[in-house]
Amino acid sequence: MIVALKPQTTEDRKDQLIGWLKGMGVDVHVSVGEYLTILGLVGDTTRLDIDLIGSLDIVDSVNRITEPFKCCNRKFHPDDTVVEIGDAKIGGGHFGMIAGPCSVESEDQIVTIAKAVKEAGAQLLRGGAFKPRTSPYDFQGLKAEGLELLKIARAETGLPIVSEIMSAADLPLFEDVDVLQVGARNMQNFDLLKELGATNKPILLKRGLANSLKELLMSAEYIMASGNEQVILCERGIRTFSDYTRNTLDISAVPMLHELSHLPVIVDPSHATGIARIVPQMAMAATACNADGLIIEVHNDPPHALCDGAQSLRPEEFADLCEKIRAIRKVVA
Amino acid sequence: MIVALKPQTTEDRKDQLIGWLKGMGVDVHVSVGEYLTILGLVGDTTRLDIDLIGSLDIVDSVNRITEPFKCCNRKFHPDDTVVEIGDAKIGGGHFGMIAGPCSVESEDQIVTIAKAVKEAGAQLLRGGAFKPRTSPYDFQGLKAEGLELLKIARAETGLPIVSEIMSAADLPLFEDVDVLQVGARNMQNFDLLKELGATNKPILLKRGLANSLKELLMSAEYIMASGNEQVILCERGIRTFSDYTRNTLDISAVPMLHELSHLPVIVDPSHATGIARIVPQMAMAATACNADGLIIEVHNDPPHALCDGAQSLRPEEFADLCEKIRAIRKVVA
Amino acid sequence: MIVALKPQTTEDRKDQLIGWLKGMGVDVHVSVGEYLTILGLVGDTTRLDIDLIGSLDIVDSVNRITEPFKCCNRKFHPDDTVVEIGDAKIGGGHFGMIAGPCSVESEDQIVTIAKAVKEAGAQLLRGGAFKPRTSPYDFQGLKAEGLELLKIARAETGLPIVSEIMSAADLPLFEDVDVLQVGARNMQNFDLLKELGATNKPILLKRGLANSLKELLMSAEYIMASGNEQVILCERGIRTFSDYTRNTLDISAVPMLHELSHLPVIVDPSHATGIARIVPQMAMAATACNADGLIIEVHNDPPHALCDGAQSLRPEEFADLCEKIRAIRKVVA
Amino acid sequence: MIVALKPQTTEDRKDQLIGWLKGMGVDVHVSVGEYLTILGLVGDTTRLDIDLIGSLDIVDSVNRITEPFKCCNRKFHPDDTVVEIGDAKIGGGHFGMIAGPCSVESEDQIVTIAKAVKEAGAQLLRGGAFKPRTSPYDFQGLKAEGLELLKIARAETGLPIVSEIMSAADLPLFEDVDVLQVGARNMQNFDLLKELGATNKPILLKRGLANSLKELLMSAEYIMASGNEQVILCERGIRTFSDYTRNTLDISAVPMLHELSHLPVIVDPSHATGIARIVPQMAMAATACNADGLIIEVHNDPPHALCDGAQSLRPEEFADLCEKIRAIRKVVA
Repeated sequence: MIVALKPQTTEDRKDQLIGWLKGMGVDVHVSVGEYLTILGLVGDTTRLDIDLIGSLDIVDSVNRITEPFKCCNRKFHPDDTVVEIGDAKIGGGHFGMIAGPCSVESEDQIVTIAKAVKEAGAQLLRGGAFKPRTSPYDFQGLKAEGLELLKIARAETGLPIVSEIMSAADLPLFEDVDVLQVGARNMQNFDLLKELGATNKPILLKRGLANSLKELLMSAEYIMASGNEQVILCERGIRTFSDYTRNTLDISAVPMLHELSHLPVIVDPSHATGIARIVPQMAMAATACNADGLIIEVHNDPPHALCDGAQSLRPEEFADLCEKIRAIRKVVA
Repeated sequence: MIVALKPQTTEDRKDQLIGWLKGMGVDVHVSVGEYLTILGLVGDTTRLDIDLIGSLDIVDSVNRITEPFKCCNRKFHPDDTVVEIGDAKIGGGHFGMIAGPCSVESEDQIVTIAKAVKEAGAQLLRGGAFKPRTSPYDFQGLKAEGLELLKIARAETGLPIVSEIMSAADLPLFEDVDVLQVGARNMQNFDLLKELGATNKPILLKRGLANSLKELLMSAEYIMASGNEQVILCERGIRTFSDYTRNTLDISAVPMLHELSHLPVIVDPSHATGIARIVPQMAMAATACNADGLIIEVHNDPPHALCDGAQSLRPEEFADLCEKIRAIRKVVA
Repeated sequence: MIVALKPQTTEDRKDQLIGWLKGMGVDVHVSVGEYLTILGLVGDTTRLDIDLIGSLDIVDSVNRITEPFKCCNRKFHPDDTVVEIGDAKIGGGHFGMIAGPCSVESEDQIVTIAKAVKEAGAQLLRGGAFKPRTSPYDFQGLKAEGLELLKIARAETGLPIVSEIMSAADLPLFEDVDVLQVGARNMQNFDLLKELGATNKPILLKRGLANSLKELLMSAEYIMASGNEQVILCERGIRTFSDYTRNTLDISAVPMLHELSHLPVIVDPSHATGIARIVPQMAMAATACNADGLIIEVHNDPPHALCDGAQSLRPEEFADLCEKIRAIRKVVA
Repeated sequence: MIVALKPQTTEDRKDQLIGWLKGMGVDVHVSVGEYLTILGLVGDTTRLDIDLIGSLDIVDSVNRITEPFKCCNRKFHPDDTVVEIGDAKIGGGHFGMIAGPCSVESEDQIVTIAKAVKEAGAQLLRGGAFKPRTSPYDFQGLKAEGLELLKIARAETGLPIVSEIMSAADLPLFEDVDVLQVGARNMQNFDLLKELGATNKPILLKRGLANSLKELLMSAEYIMASGNEQVILCERGIRTFSDYTRNTLDISAVPMLHELSHLPVIVDPSHATGIARIVPQMAMAATACNADGLIIEVHNDPPHALCDGAQSLRPEEFADLCEKIRAIRKVVA
């Protein structure tokens, strides 16, 4: 950590700060510059509150040189993590296509879609049973019943299933679900993350609407520090001033996360844009910059979907997209 | 709801859409303009998915004219809500000053600060026991023990206590806490909101980092629709490109929320900026635009605070601020 | 335009508003709903100030149904515009690769790079002579001399040249430049846009850091309304809270602009990210979602570049990228 | 400047970088940490491209410790700048109230408003003659004629006049205007800034929609480095995801700019919100956090204003506001 002191800082104030820092257990190297004096802090700086130091009136600026994440940091684990779910693999050169409806609505619906997406080339089936909705008056999902229907679809197709969990209290219901998804709104629900860290299931962790890459990695760190290393990161759009699409897909997150972490990185073009007719183009863009997979909403009857029909592809559109994805993978992977 | 159809829309596609809308139970008024045909939907449009309709290729744009929130909407409840906590009142002309440390650290610390903020003019005592921290390696609060220390401070001073709850599983521990705070990261933790709606305690609901005013009101709606009408809204800064302060205080949220809703609106200048030395100016600004109260971090020893010392005022700074706040209140209220 | 009046609006106030609107020359259709009264305005609403109407205390909301742009609107001109520059074509299925250094530094530098990018497959040569720099103390470009060096490189390679113009006063110097570029900071320098509209040269118009797609199209409209229809739109990253990259590439702008307008849309991955090592991935992503071209910084000696070396590819990296771009084009175009 | 090298950096690569840095004329102090090696650069680092260094694959991070602005930096000029315009003073404890219509429309209009705002307590008259409008089809101002009408209003009231200049080509027309305003869209029109730096007139410099405080100060630096030290900074709202107001007033910019610079800082609540009915509250908030002045739109007939009537106060509302402002100034100044 590097602390720069303001020009007018007195010797007394400087010595007082250095004493306090040493008391916190770090070594302090002092170098005096033309305008500023610079303190280099060496040792275990994780216990120092960077904001507190930065707020002192004698401090000009403070910068933490080392990232505070460890388990998910590529610096300490150079090799790609590969998450295995049944026959599917995601990461380390393996591309995972996850598809299915926003909400599970009925056995007929989910089985039909599951067969269609498998046929088109998906390796996993997604389907929402517990739905986070902005309004208390909107459809909240079939809940436990929805999970049962997903299992029926799995039995029919062999596809492992992915579904969102909103509360640790629901964990018993997810006992037999293959991948647990943490939604964007719960990315910093730390109690939930810790509980998921105590399971042995792969976790699909979505980036929050206004969260930095560092915060996403720190949330992965909550899960991993609790013992579960199977985390899949998911970019799903951020909130910006731009309002032609529901969110703004931050496509650069893919290579940047690959650089910072060894965890697999997938993209959700459906929620990132909210507009079905541009989902294929966003999916191809994500593939072209080497995402480890995609999670795409597919519905056999979008206009009658109970939720988010606007962003769902029809099965034939999805099949067409899968072919193009395979062709692009050949170019980039 | 107003749906505008694109110029080249065929009669067939138009009739098909109108039929589907009528099947959803709304009346449709058609008016043909120079370039566009406009459908005015009248009746209960809450079941219509605005995003789905907007995504149809024949639709140019769609606008919901009426807001989807009801319980907290000033249109239907013109009078200000006043939330009463012991002797303190917030809203409807009553100004509530909430102060205390970011984290409860010890009996001595919390009792000392409680006496100081009461002396300066605070009506409620805040103190964090369960702390949401970005990093799993940071101090997470004294938890149950912290709540017990807050109760001791309440017994010593008579100040009602405010503390953050992060999980519905902790509700029994908060049985005897006066105001339950929902932090910014949990603003859309809908399971938690519903559980809080089933209590009879005032809820201090903080705006999420990237949430619109409408979303904040929809989260209040979750609590109110579950039966609890005592909600205090809190602006605490939003995430923007600007990085000189930790977040950007959206001061215009105060008058806009007052216009949209009858609920009291308070401001948290400490978290909004993260910089103690500008907290007083932000607090005065909030008072000048008629906020119903403030929640301010005060610590007797900021450099040694376990958490967020950077944004805490010392008791004497807080006392000085309280005097100025009272003077500004005389001008604006 | 649709104006919704608040429930408590008196007949008098309503009639007064309708009278004023009719005086502005529009027809008003009134329909009374359960809570709100809705006015549908038909005719030439371009003279109405939507913000003024929206600010009236009796108005609940106001929405302009038709977009205010005409010349660049795909609704009125369904066919793609193809911009031709010498042998190069951009738009309507033609992909234009523009490459070169951030700044022109010397004859040797620009000629060497021009030959290299031509060899790799670029159709146009870019090079900055007038440089917009945040700091007055930074290198501001070789100016007129830089333009002369570009012309030498054009003579040596046959590549048409693209360079940024910052002020209409410099137009005489750009007489013999093939494409005039308007930088992000000047996207709403309306005086400059009008002057460029009076030339007969293709204009490469970059999106401003915080400008919506509609504002970008309105700036194109300034050029086109002044008589020059050869406009190329360029997405180059927007400013968001995310700070791992210099800006956030808004990749969804490509399909959305294609939907809204008939103008060609290219992407600048170099400025969008500021990080050379992820430029190839961003370039491939843009190609995969059907951009009409790319503008990429290439430098033979990035560490010694006078400007923006951080985002420049070396010629051999660029050549490798061009091959992959061609392969992806085969999949998507 | 502090450069941190990645753990796996070879000695060769490190020596090569150090050599290059020394070649650029700076001293390099090396300190080897547990994971990272840190280079401290001392001397004139202004010629180093921080982005270039940060992009090298061996570099983990790079931080510039000293700000790149000098003329406007409070570190080197601790005393407040006071800008004097006729009898009015702004900065250093002097509060300047600037008021008037968005656009000058007629002699009768501007003289009537000028008298009203003077009566209410304004020290300067604002009025737009050259108007930057998003659409080429909107009213662009009376131009030279508008400036003449402003001078008539000045003659009638004695109020100095403030008007926006959009192009250096118009400078002769502004010969007799007291304060030249640079609009948000031109904040980084560097050619214009340099020309204004060569005049001897006070410049009112508005912050761009998406510009950081540092960029605003760098633009002030362009003017000051060219010889003109009379710059007034103006916060007028930034673009964020929040869309209930036209822009988001960044009220914390006031104390932060005061800390960073000695220049006066005023606030434009009219453009920051675009909603007349909350302008008074925003104006009082700005005053409460010690802004050096305000610039407020006032119109005698807002519904018929040719431009931005939505954000204009009526003269009686403005007079009422001025009284409250004076009362708040007594509390804070």
